[in-house]
Amino acid sequence: MTDFFKDISPLAYAPGSADLAFRHYNPDEVIAGKRMEDHLRFGVAYWHSFAWPGGDPFGAETFQRPWFGDTMDLAKMKADVAFEMFDLLNVPFFCWHDADIRPEGDSFAESLRNFEEIIDYFGTKMQTSKTKLLWGTANLFSHRRFMSGAATNPDPEIFAWSAATVKACMDATHKLGGENYVLWGGREGYETLLNTDLKRERQQAGRFLQMAVEYKHKIGFKGAILVEPKPQEPSKHQYDFDVATVYGFLKEFGLEGEVQMNIEQGHAILAGHSFEHELALASSLGIFGSIDMNRNDYQSGWDTDQFPNNAPEVALAYYEVLKAGGFTTGGTNFDSKLRRQSLDPVDLIAAHAGAMDVCARGFKAAHAMLEDGTLEEMRNARYAGWDSAGGKTLLDSDLATIAAQVASDPIDPQPRSGRQEILENIVNRFV
Amino acid sequence: MTDFFKDISPLAYAPGSADLAFRHYNPDEVIAGKRMEDHLRFGVAYWHSFAWPGGDPFGAETFQRPWFGDTMDLAKMKADVAFEMFDLLNVPFFCWHDADIRPEGDSFAESLRNFEEIIDYFGTKMQTSKTKLLWGTANLFSHRRFMSGAATNPDPEIFAWSAATVKACMDATHKLGGENYVLWGGREGYETLLNTDLKRERQQAGRFLQMAVEYKHKIGFKGAILVEPKPQEPSKHQYDFDVATVYGFLKEFGLEGEVQMNIEQGHAILAGHSFEHELALASSLGIFGSIDMNRNDYQSGWDTDQFPNNAPEVALAYYEVLKAGGFTTGGTNFDSKLRRQSLDPVDLIAAHAGAMDVCARGFKAAHAMLEDGTLEEMRNARYAGWDSAGGKTLLDSDLATIAAQVASDPIDPQPRSGRQEILENIVNRFV
Amino acid sequence: MTDFFKDISPLAYAPGSADLAFRHYNPDEVIAGKRMEDHLRFGVAYWHSFAWPGGDPFGAETFQRPWFGDTMDLAKMKADVAFEMFDLLNVPFFCWHDADIRPEGDSFAESLRNFEEIIDYFGTKMQTSKTKLLWGTANLFSHRRFMSGAATNPDPEIFAWSAATVKACMDATHKLGGENYVLWGGREGYETLLNTDLKRERQQAGRFLQMAVEYKHKIGFKGAILVEPKPQEPSKHQYDFDVATVYGFLKEFGLEGEVQMNIEQGHAILAGHSFEHELALASSLGIFGSIDMNRNDYQSGWDTDQFPNNAPEVALAYYEVLKAGGFTTGGTNFDSKLRRQSLDPVDLIAAHAGAMDVCARGFKAAHAMLEDGTLEEMRNARYAGWDSAGGKTLLDSDLATIAAQVASDPIDPQPRSGRQEILENIVNRFV
Amino acid sequence: MTDFFKDISPLAYAPGSADLAFRHYNPDEVIAGKRMEDHLRFGVAYWHSFAWPGGDPFGAETFQRPWFGDTMDLAKMKADVAFEMFDLLNVPFFCWHDADIRPEGDSFAESLRNFEEIIDYFGTKMQTSKTKLLWGTANLFSHRRFMSGAATNPDPEIFAWSAATVKACMDATHKLGGENYVLWGGREGYETLLNTDLKRERQQAGRFLQMAVEYKHKIGFKGAILVEPKPQEPSKHQYDFDVATVYGFLKEFGLEGEVQMNIEQGHAILAGHSFEHELALASSLGIFGSIDMNRNDYQSGWDTDQFPNNAPEVALAYYEVLKAGGFTTGGTNFDSKLRRQSLDPVDLIAAHAGAMDVCARGFKAAHAMLEDGTLEEMRNARYAGWDSAGGKTLLDSDLATIAAQVASDPIDPQPRSGRQEILENIVNRFV
Repeated sequence: MTDFFKDISPLAYAPGSADLAFRHYNPDEVIAGKRMEDHLRFGVAYWHSFAWPGGDPFGAETFQRPWFGDTMDLAKMKADVAFEMFDLLNVPFFCWHDADIRPEGDSFAESLRNFEEIIDYFGTKMQTSKTKLLWGTANLFSHRRFMSGAATNPDPEIFAWSAATVKACMDATHKLGGENYVLWGGREGYETLLNTDLKRERQQAGRFLQMAVEYKHKIGFKGAILVEPKPQEPSKHQYDFDVATVYGFLKEFGLEGEVQMNIEQGHAILAGHSFEHELALASSLGIFGSIDMNRNDYQSGWDTDQFPNNAPEVALAYYEVLKAGGFTTGGTNFDSKLRRQSLDPVDLIAAHAGAMDVCARGFKAAHAMLEDGTLEEMRNARYAGWDSAGGKTLLDSDLATIAAQVASDPIDPQPRSGRQEILENIVNRFV
Repeated sequence: MTDFFKDISPLAYAPGSADLAFRHYNPDEVIAGKRMEDHLRFGVAYWHSFAWPGGDPFGAETFQRPWFGDTMDLAKMKADVAFEMFDLLNVPFFCWHDADIRPEGDSFAESLRNFEEIIDYFGTKMQTSKTKLLWGTANLFSHRRFMSGAATNPDPEIFAWSAATVKACMDATHKLGGENYVLWGGREGYETLLNTDLKRERQQAGRFLQMAVEYKHKIGFKGAILVEPKPQEPSKHQYDFDVATVYGFLKEFGLEGEVQMNIEQGHAILAGHSFEHELALASSLGIFGSIDMNRNDYQSGWDTDQFPNNAPEVALAYYEVLKAGGFTTGGTNFDSKLRRQSLDPVDLIAAHAGAMDVCARGFKAAHAMLEDGTLEEMRNARYAGWDSAGGKTLLDSDLATIAAQVASDPIDPQPRSGRQEILENIVNRFV
Repeated sequence: MTDFFKDISPLAYAPGSADLAFRHYNPDEVIAGKRMEDHLRFGVAYWHSFAWPGGDPFGAETFQRPWFGDTMDLAKMKADVAFEMFDLLNVPFFCWHDADIRPEGDSFAESLRNFEEIIDYFGTKMQTSKTKLLWGTANLFSHRRFMSGAATNPDPEIFAWSAATVKACMDATHKLGGENYVLWGGREGYETLLNTDLKRERQQAGRFLQMAVEYKHKIGFKGAILVEPKPQEPSKHQYDFDVATVYGFLKEFGLEGEVQMNIEQGHAILAGHSFEHELALASSLGIFGSIDMNRNDYQSGWDTDQFPNNAPEVALAYYEVLKAGGFTTGGTNFDSKLRRQSLDPVDLIAAHAGAMDVCARGFKAAHAMLEDGTLEEMRNARYAGWDSAGGKTLLDSDLATIAAQVASDPIDPQPRSGRQEILENIVNRFV
Repeated sequence: MTDFFKDISPLAYAPGSADLAFRHYNPDEVIAGKRMEDHLRFGVAYWHSFAWPGGDPFGAETFQRPWFGDTMDLAKMKADVAFEMFDLLNVPFFCWHDADIRPEGDSFAESLRNFEEIIDYFGTKMQTSKTKLLWGTANLFSHRRFMSGAATNPDPEIFAWSAATVKACMDATHKLGGENYVLWGGREGYETLLNTDLKRERQQAGRFLQMAVEYKHKIGFKGAILVEPKPQEPSKHQYDFDVATVYGFLKEFGLEGEVQMNIEQGHAILAGHSFEHELALASSLGIFGSIDMNRNDYQSGWDTDQFPNNAPEVALAYYEVLKAGGFTTGGTNFDSKLRRQSLDPVDLIAAHAGAMDVCARGFKAAHAMLEDGTLEEMRNARYAGWDSAGGKTLLDSDLATIAAQVASDPIDPQPRSGRQEILENIVNRFV
C-alpha cells in the first residue's frame, strides 16, 4: 500500500450524505434486470489521472506526483496508486496508453521491454482486483517522432514504428483480457494542406486500420476495435473528424462491419455536434461501441476534458445508449482530467465520484424516460404516415410516377407542430 | 429593355482603371491553352441577386426592387433585369431555384404552370444571350410546408410534393441545356433529436437522391448531379454536413459514382473546415464537381454569403480546383448576396465585378504556382520514402511482420521539418 | 374572449402531474420570507410570442396567427390573446416593443397615434389583469430606415426619428406604470469598418443614452433604465458587446449611476461568456438590473432564443441573482421564441410553463445552496490571507517597498488546490 | 559566434528573388517622409523564438535547441543566437519575458541574480547591435505558483512575489532603454466562478496596475505602460478580455491617461473581433499603443500564434495604425511561434522574413489607400449630414424638443446604400 490516498476510505453509497460518498451510484441496484455497475461499466483513464502532469500551453507541471519520473520503480508505484484508486472507487474498468504506464526507453526494444514488464505487473495486480481492462491503446502522438503523423507520416519508418507499437499494445490488451482495443489518431491529420498529400495519407490510414483488424483476427482477440473520432487538436484537421466521417472511411476501406466508435462528448462538441447526435448517428449506422464521458467547456474552443457535471445532458446521452441496446463490450470511460489547480489526492477521488453520480442520475432518468414511453410514442406517431400503405410504397416509386400521382390526385400537405418544447418539458419530468 | 441598370454600361477589361470595369478578369486571355472564361465559368445566382429582399432575422425587406411581387408580369420583369445584368457582366452562366423565378401558385399545378411559363421565357431569352444555365435546383425549404424537411419529412405527402418538384426542376434544367442539377437540403436535418427518427430520415434522403439519379438517366440528362453540403442553418443539424459526411452517405446508398459535390466556401467554414480542405478532400475522393464562391464572415456564426474579396484565400481554392483537373460541368457560382444596406443597382454590378476580379487574380496566382512547380516538388519530396522499394511494400505487409522487422533491424526515425512557413512564403510570391 | 386558447385552462400547481401544469413553480410558496412570484417576477415578451411570424433566413412565416396583419382591429385581437395568455400562465409581468403592438403607419404621426391607442387599450385591460409592465422599449432595428443604425445612423434625421420614438415609448412605459425602460441597439454597430466612423457613432450613442436618462428624470419616471448588451447579430459588431463593454461606455459618458444591465443568457453565450459570468460581473460593478432567460443553442452560432430547459444552468444564474440581492425593478423575462415548427396554441403555453418550472427549480436550488453556505465558506476561506493584517496593507503598498520586503524576508508561496470538482459536486447536491 | 545559423547570410532586399531575402521590406525606403524601418518598427519575441520548446497539449518538445537547459551558460548561448538572428534579419527591436532569458533559481533572490546577469549581458551585446528593446515583461503565468493568478491570486504572498518581479522587470527595461513595458495577465482570470471572488480579484488587478504606473513615474521611465488584452486561454476567462473591457477597467481605476493597448491579432480573433476593430476602437478611445502581429487559425479555437501571411488582412490593420498616427513608442512585434514541425534554423529565419514582407506589403498598400483618399472621402460623405447646422445642434438637444420638431416638421428619412462591396473593391485596388 502506498500512502497517497492515506486519509481516504473506500466510497460507500450514502444518498443523503455530504461526505465523500456516492449519492446516486449504487452498483448493485438492479435496473431493468441488470446491476447498475453492469449497465454503466465505468472506466478510469490512466492517461489523465496518473500520467498528465497538469501542464497547459502557458504553464508547466502543477501536480508533482511522487511517481513522476522515468524509472520502472516509479512506473510500478504509479500502478500501485492507480489500483488503490480503482479500489476506493470500486470501478469495474480501467484503460491505458502504452506511454502512460511505462517509461520511454532509448530504443523501441527497450520501450517494449518496459511495457511488457508493466503489463505483467498489471496482470498480477488484476488477479486480486475486480478492475478489468476496458481497453488498451497506443500513444502515437506525444513523442516528437510522431509530430507529422503515425500511420499517415510522410516517413514510412514511422509507419513501421507505429505498426509495431500497435501490435505490442494489441498483444498486451489481449493478454490482460481487455474488452476493446482503441485507436485515436491525434496526429493523423495535418497542420497545412500545403505540405500534405491528403489522398496518400488517407490510404495509409486506411491500410493501417485494416492491419489492426487483420491482426485482431489472427490472434483471436474477441474484443471490439474502436476508433475515436476527433475533429482537430492537436492537428489543425484530423482525418477521423466525427462519426459520419469515420463511417465513410470505414465504407471506403471495407471495414464497416469490423470497427465501432468510441465517442467522446468533448470531441462531439469540437466537431459542432451534440454528444447525443454522435451517439444516435453511430447507433443508426450500426457502429456504436463505447463512450468517453468527458465534456468540453462550451466557451472554450479546445479540448478541456472536464468531468461531467450536468445530469440533464448526461441523461440525453444515456437515452441514446439505451436505445442502441446499451453497452456490450463498451463502457463509460472518463477520459477526464482534473483542472490543473486541483492538486490534492482527494480532488482525484472526488472528481470521479461526482462524475459517477452524475452518470448514475442521468442513466436512471434515461431509463425512466424509456420506460415511460411517451417520448417514443410521440416520435413514432410523428412518422405514422410512413407506416401506412401509401407511405410504405412511396420509397419504392420513382420521380415520374410520383409526379403523375401529384398531378392526378392533388395534395396540399399541411405542416404539423414539431412539439419541441413539449418534448423538452417531458424530459424535464425525468431529469 | 428595363431601365433598372440605366446608367451602367457593359463592363470592359481595363486594368488600370478606377471605374466600374474589370481590372483582372479578361475572359479572352488564354492561360494554359484555355480562355479565362472557360476556366472560371462564372455563374450568377438568381436567388440572392434577384429574389432575396434584403431581410434578416431582425429586419424586413430593404431592397424594394420594382419586380417584387407575385404576378407573372413581375416575374418576367425580373427575368429581363437578370439577363440585362448577365449581359453587363458578360457572364457565361446563371443558376436558379424554381421559387426564385416564378410566383408560388395556389396549388402544385398552378405553381408548375407558372414555372414552366418562365422556363419557356428563359428559353427564348437564352436564344439571344451567351449566358447558359450552370444548374437548376428546387427550393424545398422556404415554404412552410417544408418546415420539417422535404425528403426527410415525417409526412410522406411532403416527400411526394418534393419528388414531383424535383422532377419538374430536372425537366426544366434538361430543357434549358443546364450542365448540372443541384440538391441542397437546408431542411433535411433536425431541430431536436427528441422528435427525430434519424435512421428513417436518412433512409428517406438516400432513396430520394437515388430517385433523382435514376430520373437523370431516364430522361438522358448528361449533366452532373451535385449535392451541396452544409452543416446547419436553417436546421440545427443537416444530414449533408460536409464533404466527408456526404461521401459516407453516397457509399451507403451506392451513389458514389453518380453524384458530385457543389462546395461553398461559407459552408466549409461553418463546418469547421477551410474551403481548400473541402475541395482537396472531394478531389481525393473523386467527387469534386462545382463551387459556390461566397465567403462567410470569420467573426459571424451564420451564413453571411458575402462576395469573395480576399485574393490569397481564393488562390488556394483555385489551386485545389486546378490540381483536380479544373472544372468539367462545374463552374464558379456566386451564391453571394449583397449586404442588405447595398441598395443601389450599381452595388449589384460592382459586387459581381469585384468578385470576378478577385477570382481572376486568385486563379492566375494558382496557375502560376502550379506552373512554377516548387510546391508540388516539395510535397512529393516529403513523401519520397513511400516511393522507395521498402515504402511500397510496407502497405502490403502486416503488423506481425512489421514488428518482427523492427525487432530484427532496429530503426530510430527522426522527424523532419514540415516547412510550413517556407511554403507559405512561396505562396506569397504568387498571390 | 377570443377562442385562440379555447381548450386550455389556467395552469395549476400540480407537482406530480403529467398534464399541462406547473410541477415546480408555486407562486405563493414563501422562500426566505418572500413569495416565489415576487422573487422570480416572470415576464412574457410580446415580441416573440405574438409578433414573430416564425420566419428564418431560409423560410417564411409558419405561424399564421389570426391577428397577423396591419389593422388596429387585429392589433387589439393580438392584445386580447396576449392578456388571455398572461392569465392562463398567471404571470405578473409582460414587455413590449412599440412595433410589436401597433401597426406601422404611413408617417411618424400615424404610427404614434396607433401606438397611443394600443397603450390606452392596454391600460384598460391592465385594470382587470394582475399582469403589469416589466418594461417597454422601442424597436429601432426592424424597419429599413434603421438598416444603418438608429442613434448611430450616418443620417441625423434617423437619430431624430429614433429620439422621438424613444420619447413616445418612455411616455407610454411611464403611463402604464412600467418598472423599467430598456434599450437594445441591434443596429447600433456596423457591417464593415470601411464605411464606419466608429468614434462618431459611439459619441452619438452616448449622447442618445444621456438624453434617455435626462428624459426619465424630466418626466419623473422612477423605473430603471436598462441597456441590453449583445455582441452581434444583426450587426456584424454591436457597440453594446457585453457587460464589460457597456460598463466602459457608461463610465465614458458619465452614466454608470444611471443605467443598469438587462442580461440575456443567449447574448452572453454569443459574446463568449457564461450567463453567470455576465451576472456576476454586472453585480460586482453595481449595474445589475434584470434578465432575459432565453438560451442559445451551444452548437449554433446565432441567436436561437430558446426557452430555458436546463435546470442546473439556470440554478447557477439565480445563484448570482440572489448574491446580487435579488431583483428590485428587474425580473425574469422570457425573450424566447417558439421553434418555428411549434405551430399550435398549446405549444405557446407549454413552452412558457416548462420554462417557468425550470426557473423555479433553479431558483429553489440556488436558494438552498446559499442557505447551506458551504460554497461561500469555501470561497471566503480561499481568500482568507487577504483579510489578515499583512494582506490588508499590501494593496496600500508600492512595488519598491514590496520588493524590499521580498528581498529581506524571503517567501516561497505554494499553490493550493482550487477544488473545482469538489465545488461542482456540492452544486450537484442541490440541482 | 555560435554556429546555429551557420549557413545563413544576412537577408538582403532582393525583390525578384526566390532565395531567402526580402522581396517587399526595404528598411531604407522612404514612405511619407519616414524610412520603412521607422514606420514598421519590427520586433522579435524572445519567448516564442528562443524559449518555446515546440510542445502542445498532446506532445512534448520537438525543437531540441542546443541552448535548452537551466544553466547560465546556456542562457548566454541563447542570447548569442538571438542577437545573431536579430542581425541576420536586421530588426530594430526585440522583446522578452524574464523567464525567457534566465534560468529559474531556487529562490526569488537567485532568479533575480540570474536575471540581472543576463540583463547586463544584453546590455553589452546591445552596445554593438542595432537592435533595441521594444518592451520587457514579466512571466507571471508559467510557474505553478501562478496557477491561480498573479495579482489576482487568492494568496497575497503571490501578489507580493508578482509585484517584486514586475519591479525587477521594469528596472531592467528602463536600464536597457526599453520603449515600453507590457503586462499580459494570462492567469488573471478564473477557471470556475464557483471558487472566485470576481470583485476582489478585479480590485487586486486594478491596484497592481496602479502600482506599476506609480513605479514608472518614480523611476523616471519614459516609455509607455501597455496592457495586452486576451479573452481566455490559459484561463477560462481573463479579466483583460478585449480593448473595450480594458478601457472600462482603466476608467474604473483612473488609469486611462496612463496605460495603452498592445493589441494582438490572434487575441482579437479569440475575443470575437477583427484585428482592425480592436485597433480602431483603441485609437478612437485614445489608448492605442503597439501590436503583436501574429494571427490565429480561423478554424482553431485556441491561440495558434502563427506568423502573418495574408497581406490584405495586414493592410487593413496598418490602415488603422496609420489613421491613428502610426507608432510612437510601439511597434510591430511578432509574438509568433514556428509550427512545431518547423525544426530547422532556416525555418526560424524564413518565418520572420516572410512575415516582415507580408507586413511591408500591407503597410505600403495601407499608405497608398490613405494617400489616394477615396475611402476617407466616402466615409466622410456618408456622415456629412452631421456636419450641417442641423446635425451639429441635434446632439445638444433633448428628447422632448426633438419629438416636438418631428411632430411639427414631419420627416421621412430614406436609407442610403452603405456601399460595402464598392468599398471592398477599392481596397482590392491597393492590396
